Amino acid sequence: MGNGQMNDIGRLAALVVLTDEETARGIAPHLSEYEVVTGRVGSMELKKVIASVETAAKRGSLIDGDVYRETHALYHAIIEAAEGVTRGKLSVGEIMRTVGLSFSVVRGRPYEDEREGEWLAVCFYGTIGAPIKGKEHETLGLGINHI
Amino acid sequence: MGNGQMNDIGRLAALVVLTDEETARGIAPHLSEYEVVTGRVGSMELKKVIASVETAAKRGSLIDGDVYRETHALYHAIIEAAEGVTRGKLSVGEIMRTVGLSFSVVRGRPYEDEREGEWLAVCFYGTIGAPIKGKEHETLGLGINHI
Amino acid sequence: MGNGQMNDIGRLAALVVLTDEETARGIAPHLSEYEVVTGRVGSMELKKVIASVETAAKRGSLIDGDVYRETHALYHAIIEAAEGVTRGKLSVGEIMRTVGLSFSVVRGRPYEDEREGEWLAVCFYGTIGAPIKGKEHETLGLGINHI
Amino acid sequence: MGNGQMNDIGRLAALVVLTDEETARGIAPHLSEYEVVTGRVGSMELKKVIASVETAAKRGSLIDGDVYRETHALYHAIIEAAEGVTRGKLSVGEIMRTVGLSFSVVRGRPYEDEREGEWLAVCFYGTIGAPIKGKEHETLGLGINHI
Amino acid sequence: MGNGQMNDIGRLAALVVLTDEETARGIAPHLSEYEVVTGRVGSMELKKVIASVETAAKRGSLIDGDVYRETHALYHAIIEAAEGVTRGKLSVGEIMRTVGLSFSVVRGRPYEDEREGEWLAVCFYGTIGAPIKGKEHETLGLGINHI
Amino acid sequence: MGNGQMNDIGRLAALVVLTDEETARGIAPHLSEYEVVTGRVGSMELKKVIASVETAAKRGSLIDGDVYRETHALYHAIIEAAEGVTRGKLSVGEIMRTVGLSFSVVRGRPYEDEREGEWLAVCFYGTIGAPIKGKEHETLGLGINHI
Repeated sequence: MGNGQMNDIGRLAALVVLTDEETARGIAPHLSEYEVVTGRVGSMELKKVIASVETAAKRGSLIDGDVYRETHALYHAIIEAAEGVTRGKLSVGEIMRTVGLSFSVVRGRPYEDEREGEWLAVCFYGTIGAPIKGKEHETLGLGINHI
Repeated sequence: MGNGQMNDIGRLAALVVLTDEETARGIAPHLSEYEVVTGRVGSMELKKVIASVETAAKRGSLIDGDVYRETHALYHAIIEAAEGVTRGKLSVGEIMRTVGLSFSVVRGRPYEDEREGEWLAVCFYGTIGAPIKGKEHETLGLGINHI
Repeated sequence: MGNGQMNDIGRLAALVVLTDEETARGIAPHLSEYEVVTGRVGSMELKKVIASVETAAKRGSLIDGDVYRETHALYHAIIEAAEGVTRGKLSVGEIMRTVGLSFSVVRGRPYEDEREGEWLAVCFYGTIGAPIKGKEHETLGLGINHI
Repeated sequence: MGNGQMNDIGRLAALVVLTDEETARGIAPHLSEYEVVTGRVGSMELKKVIASVETAAKRGSLIDGDVYRETHALYHAIIEAAEGVTRGKLSVGEIMRTVGLSFSVVRGRPYEDEREGEWLAVCFYGTIGAPIKGKEHETLGLGINHI
Repeated sequence: MGNGQMNDIGRLAALVVLTDEETARGIAPHLSEYEVVTGRVGSMELKKVIASVETAAKRGSLIDGDVYRETHALYHAIIEAAEGVTRGKLSVGEIMRTVGLSFSVVRGRPYEDEREGEWLAVCFYGTIGAPIKGKEHETLGLGINHI
Repeated sequence: MGNGQMNDIGRLAALVVLTDEETARGIAPHLSEYEVVTGRVGSMELKKVIASVETAAKRGSLIDGDVYRETHALYHAIIEAAEGVTRGKLSVGEIMRTVGLSFSVVRGRPYEDEREGEWLAVCFYGTIGAPIKGKEHETLGLGINHI
């Protein structure tokens, strides 16, 4: 993996938020079958960040909002990506921080074996810091789950 | 930030591990003044992962190993990146997981204001999973600190 | 322990929330000397869950609310049970989850040795999930403390 | 839920470890279609606990060990159950504790809607404490995941 | 260190909150070159605690509020001290607790080697407990960072 | 509290490790009825730190090692103090750190009301850092529990 040709659903999710979908697909043309949804959210409340990703994924038909199984898979992928963003303390405003994030959600079949089925990748990239412009630095997080 | 021209020391660190240094510098030519060190490590022990990054950064003269201040700044950036990799439980082998990671360390001045001085970014990308080939998925983590 | 005849104050607490007090006492007739208080609470705020258990325990005279020692013992038993419910992130609404829980508090002497004195068990059982009916799964948590 | 007739895959998993499979199925006869695997493990190493559950689930054909998707689902359910056992610190021997646990793994379809598919519940019940007989108290943990 | 003559910026920070600045400087006269700012804060919200320390440090000219580097160094020192205060769960009101704290911030050069530059120590001492007078016990936390 | 005359069992525990027992008792003469045990431990393994405090407390007859209730109360006070030392990640060697610590354990009746009974305070003070002399900074932690 890493630079390999397979299984890099997470790499595509990360490249999309670090550059843009066109550049990302140019770097990784073999990933053309993955579906991608993107969005942006800024907040001091983690629940708003979570809700933004869930809403984007449902509106973009990336997950079926009627099926709890899909919501459950996405929720845990979002939380795992948020752990990377918050680095050890799953809190934002409660500890006087704010985030401004781009996000991507990617759905597809990263494994050759058919039985592995579909997986989701969620990636955040943006800033975290004091609630004052410029008093912030970059942050990144990736979550992966089977669906 | 995000896709901005400034302050994206973390973006360079991430692009380096997700593609390679040449591709990363091609996407972000304005970042040519940043110094970059890269490496790879696979282990069930987090301390070996930490030690590999520290050794690479010292050998590559990215930090001055004689000054605790620089070691301290790098250590906390590594730990923050490792939080993204391990997503909420800063453990690998203790909970029956193994990691195979590429890493980058980037040093430079991401802020226009001279007083902000130098900062470090550490990024990991690779796989985490059961200690069996193929029973794994991707993982990513970024840490940023002032030096 | 486990299926033993002694020291299973936690087992009684769990059986009470998983079935009901009568069934639980039928399964474990040797535990008849333990005092039991039960209740229900649904919330997106962990502090309301904590307060519900504290209020029920005081109203049911299971603990003496005037003595900090007893409040302190109960508080830590509740928090430990809540760790099981929230599994690694002691948050509910902040990360866009809601809980609907039955709880029990049991007080008694689980050890043969008189010097071991009284202990408390707190158990929660119910659902955790998205704040939408049906988008949830079961959750369980047990906390034990000396009083 | 709670005492409801549906969706109580976790309740069955808990009743099995708190009593035994026969008693548990007697309390919850409507759950007869769920598959159940049980076992016991005592250790100061969490990885041995995880490995014991994985081995029992594979040997009992509860999951297909060749498919990473199933291993991944089980792994996260085990970790969530272990969070309940360790209550806030996912460590055993590292912080001078030992565990003696019975466990159950249950697989089935807890939702009426066919699209929700199969889910897993993992439950631990036993003791945690100092590595000296009798210097311990009860502990319980439940994890649930879609498969 | 420990009782040594050097590097005890944290010891001074702790003695100031446990006694008062005059007593602390009497115990540690060799630390006369360190700058000290003190304050008090009581709250159920951690963000108010963080903001109080930041405001006191800026008003007392201990850090330069215009430079993010200094804000970033102070923020992480505060968070580390708050980990000691909250002991494993970086939350106060969310889990039904309140704090009443004295704090100190100390800035100086704790290492002989000039290259080590300036460091910060933040110390909290006071009470944590139920939001009822007397239903509380002491708490203490120290954070250290390079600036 | 804070600088008050009562309830400062934790303050005494902290002053003992930050200065020495004689100095501490001189600052707080009203605390003469508390029993104090002290010791030192250096390790990369948290379990050795825990064991050192437990052994010192038993040898010094501060707790009765035959009674689990007392071991349980001390264990949780040690873990809470260790949370302050490790600040958010209850690990030492696993994340490439080492500690060199002085510790104190204090037992007594910090509340006027007789019913509050006896409490324990555990305090650590020393260094944490890379396993290289001088590449370290100070650390402090306090835990309090009823016994």
